[in-house]
Amino acid sequence: MEKKSLNEVFDSFDAQWQPHLIGTVNETAVKVAKIEGEFVWHHHETEDEMFIVIKGSFDMELRDRTITLEEGDYLVVPRGVEHRPVARQECWIMMVEPATTLNTGNVQNERTREPIEV
Amino acid sequence: MEKKSLNEVFDSFDAQWQPHLIGTVNETAVKVAKIEGEFVWHHHETEDEMFIVIKGSFDMELRDRTITLEEGDYLVVPRGVEHRPVARQECWIMMVEPATTLNTGNVQNERTREPIEV
Repeated sequence: MEKKSLNEVFDSFDAQWQPHLIGTVNETAVKVAKIEGEFVWHHHETEDEMFIVIKGSFDMELRDRTITLEEGDYLVVPRGVEHRPVARQECWIMMVEPATTLNTGNVQNERTREPIEV
Repeated sequence: MEKKSLNEVFDSFDAQWQPHLIGTVNETAVKVAKIEGEFVWHHHETEDEMFIVIKGSFDMELRDRTITLEEGDYLVVPRGVEHRPVARQECWIMMVEPATTLNTGNVQNERTREPIEV
């Protein structure tokens, strides 16, 4: 059991769209990622997903609207809801989701990544 | 589904040691609280608990050592581990834990609080 620093974790990697696992709480994973550009449309069949903006901002595109998240904002995307994160500039996010959650959900493509444990 | 702001949530209440539920992800709760002073020694039988410091700092006292968490630091306290948060000045924290988690764990006393949904 040791404390870590979010800033040090973010400073430790450059790769965008690569989830980094910072902690596990029972069956739930807490991950961070740097994102920039457009992700892929996807949904998660059985997993809700919470996004918290640590630095910067991004648009969470939904099929019927777009929600812009600024620093300190958070949003829960319920299971089944199609979404696509889009960041104009690099944005640092935290995600809380079941450990089973794949970043691209129901889609498997070149953006699909297993999380890297910090 | 709507975004919210952590700062606005923290600005919306004054009560210390009162968990506020800001989101649920499957069976996991994300809560925030303002803490100041000494909490009660407790543990959680079956629940891991992640603490993230949003503002300020606090000491997580364990039976064999104390871990000081500054702003942006995080720590997972595994189930079964006795702990006691102590904050010299008001500190704002976020917690990720199973929704079943009671703030005082195995102890029931005047500090025991059900979370307030934000």
